[in-house]
Amino acid sequence: MALFTEEIKDSVGEIERMVQSRGDAALMALTEKFDGVKLESLKVSEEAMDEAFVNVSTDLLIALEKAKENIEKYHRKQLRESFFTREENGGMLGQMITPLKRVGLYVPGGTAAYPSSVLMNGIPAALAGVKEIVLISPPQQDGKIHPGVLVAAKLIGITEVYTLGGAQGIFAMTYGTESIPKVDKIVGPGNVYVTLAKKMVYGQVDIDMIAGPSEILIIADKDQNPAFIAADLLSQAEHDPLASAILITPSKALGEAVLKELEQQQQNLQRKDITQTALENQGKIIITETLEEAFHLSNRFAPEHLELLVEDPMSHLPKVENAGCVFLGPYSPEPLGDYYAGTNHTLPTSGSAKYFSPLSVDDFIKNTSLVYYTKEGLQRARKDIELLADYEGLEAHKKAVSLRFEEDTEDRKI
Amino acid sequence: MALFTEEIKDSVGEIERMVQSRGDAALMALTEKFDGVKLESLKVSEEAMDEAFVNVSTDLLIALEKAKENIEKYHRKQLRESFFTREENGGMLGQMITPLKRVGLYVPGGTAAYPSSVLMNGIPAALAGVKEIVLISPPQQDGKIHPGVLVAAKLIGITEVYTLGGAQGIFAMTYGTESIPKVDKIVGPGNVYVTLAKKMVYGQVDIDMIAGPSEILIIADKDQNPAFIAADLLSQAEHDPLASAILITPSKALGEAVLKELEQQQQNLQRKDITQTALENQGKIIITETLEEAFHLSNRFAPEHLELLVEDPMSHLPKVENAGCVFLGPYSPEPLGDYYAGTNHTLPTSGSAKYFSPLSVDDFIKNTSLVYYTKEGLQRARKDIELLADYEGLEAHKKAVSLRFEEDTEDRKI
Repeated sequence: MALFTEEIKDSVGEIERMVQSRGDAALMALTEKFDGVKLESLKVSEEAMDEAFVNVSTDLLIALEKAKENIEKYHRKQLRESFFTREENGGMLGQMITPLKRVGLYVPGGTAAYPSSVLMNGIPAALAGVKEIVLISPPQQDGKIHPGVLVAAKLIGITEVYTLGGAQGIFAMTYGTESIPKVDKIVGPGNVYVTLAKKMVYGQVDIDMIAGPSEILIIADKDQNPAFIAADLLSQAEHDPLASAILITPSKALGEAVLKELEQQQQNLQRKDITQTALENQGKIIITETLEEAFHLSNRFAPEHLELLVEDPMSHLPKVENAGCVFLGPYSPEPLGDYYAGTNHTLPTSGSAKYFSPLSVDDFIKNTSLVYYTKEGLQRARKDIELLADYEGLEAHKKAVSLRFEEDTEDRKI
Repeated sequence: MALFTEEIKDSVGEIERMVQSRGDAALMALTEKFDGVKLESLKVSEEAMDEAFVNVSTDLLIALEKAKENIEKYHRKQLRESFFTREENGGMLGQMITPLKRVGLYVPGGTAAYPSSVLMNGIPAALAGVKEIVLISPPQQDGKIHPGVLVAAKLIGITEVYTLGGAQGIFAMTYGTESIPKVDKIVGPGNVYVTLAKKMVYGQVDIDMIAGPSEILIIADKDQNPAFIAADLLSQAEHDPLASAILITPSKALGEAVLKELEQQQQNLQRKDITQTALENQGKIIITETLEEAFHLSNRFAPEHLELLVEDPMSHLPKVENAGCVFLGPYSPEPLGDYYAGTNHTLPTSGSAKYFSPLSVDDFIKNTSLVYYTKEGLQRARKDIELLADYEGLEAHKKAVSLRFEEDTEDRKI
């Protein structure tokens, strides 16, 4: 979980107050302060969106299109139907599914660009039927949002985009400003300031989840390729010095081979500083007696990403109780899920896979229950309802039913 | 939203520390302090559960059984299947649904009893397949949980019950004590101490929602029965001096008739103090130009309970964007939903119907994504994945894929 120092809390609290009282002016000032950019306007024009296509390669476009296709195909299977039931007692019940009206996507920026984040957050929202999807992302040095982000947004039909980041972006979307109407839900990961801001506004808006540091847990048997395992551990370790990378195996020899591989593979990594810190502090190689024990430990940890590099991995699936996403076999490296396969890469961290799920279409809809009884139906039900209301000491609840059948009240009209 | 004064926060913080450090001993001490009862044991024995049946009427049992049947029937329609997909590229994806392992139900107690709360929280959990459902409820003066609560628990198969309430109950279920193993999720409403405790532990466990005061909003046309409307407004007002009760109608005459009815009907209510305060502070009768406008206002308020007392209510449903539960027509009084019809009575309040849903089976399961690619499948995908990882500056992500096809690493074994 992100560490919110007093200093960070004060800073974010101040930003909140500024945005609430000064709206767009505060956003401009804060963007200049934190991003070093003097914006002319917050909203990204259609021309600027189109221009971004010039600044990305055709290969990237093809890759994004393919990823989009896969992500849509998978998430489409999550769509649910509203339902109605006919009750024999003369009534009808229902569950009506409505997309959220307006959702804000936060896409981190700065030096790196995350078009995959746009796809993973935006596609389920679009499939759910959200009419107004807003995207905000901080500017680069040149004052513009990274072209890869703009291109991904355009690809999935997002046209309302603002050059805006940080806690100020979260508060703008929560409270609304002159330029930016407020939203009902905010999704997307960000730095510690963004994460704290999201936590603060939860309840006034909905949020996806408080993202903790990345985690990978690999269960492997002795027959696996240690180079693959090391590479996968490093792929998560490179995210964050706080990332966790764990191998659990009954084979001591495999554990030792992976250690060697880790050392070797890290030499050539640009982000060696980050991976080394992550592995030193949160890296583990655990040797168990049995494979069974490995699953037991994994369930207790409830990892964000779980790789099963074991013989016949499907047969072991019933043992998995808690994990965000499971990658089976030696050719399902975790980055496959991050970018391409179609499953969502926004996953529960910090043990919350015990009760939270990957981001899905469900995160962008809400249900409304329906109750429609006939007079006869209510008459048949009234004895039981009145008895229960009476038992719970709720007299007016009881009377709301009984009065509908009392001579002097049952037919009143103005 | 509940008001958490400094005093309440301090008190609950102290309770948390006591439970964390002294476990069962703290629970005993706090139950004596707050409930005035010296418990012999926390766990309710099977005999005590059975004994409760002697202390409730047969009629109540019949009513609870019927309500249970209706609630099960409705919630069963919410059950979802895990799915698997076959990808033409040589891969397989899936979404695996797993029930939460252990869930705690909080049932408020004291002078009143809420067997309906047991059913509404327990049945979706049981249908979802949660193996360990724990129920806690504070003792009455005689040291026992109210028999109606025990009976309802037994009816739906809950056997792990503890005589325990308040914030201490929430912390016991979150951290675990000698007697009470910790849970993954806590559901159920409670007083301001319980609500604050739930808010504090959210993230360490999941919770259902932070329940705000009850709300009813009635949209009515001129042909409706003002006695019905007044009775329904009062049925919510009786919950809480902070409850909201709103009528929106294009008919001034109806509004005036309802005002008269409210005055008259309140005379005879035991909970008159509560209803009067609620209506004074949060009661409204709004006269609009058109029915259309009424729906517009209702959507902005996003009520917990929405009653449509209008001609052909179904035809107006498409206008409803935000509401927890909609009651259609003159014979669907809100208490029908609270106790009997089958829909859940745990609903979003304080405007959160814009993005939250009624409690459902979905609240007791979690999804796990599955990814299983063949070597050929990954080979076909690798160019796109490596390009995307590279674009995002994640080198180790790229290498985790490419290394699987490099001569010196692709076939390594220990």
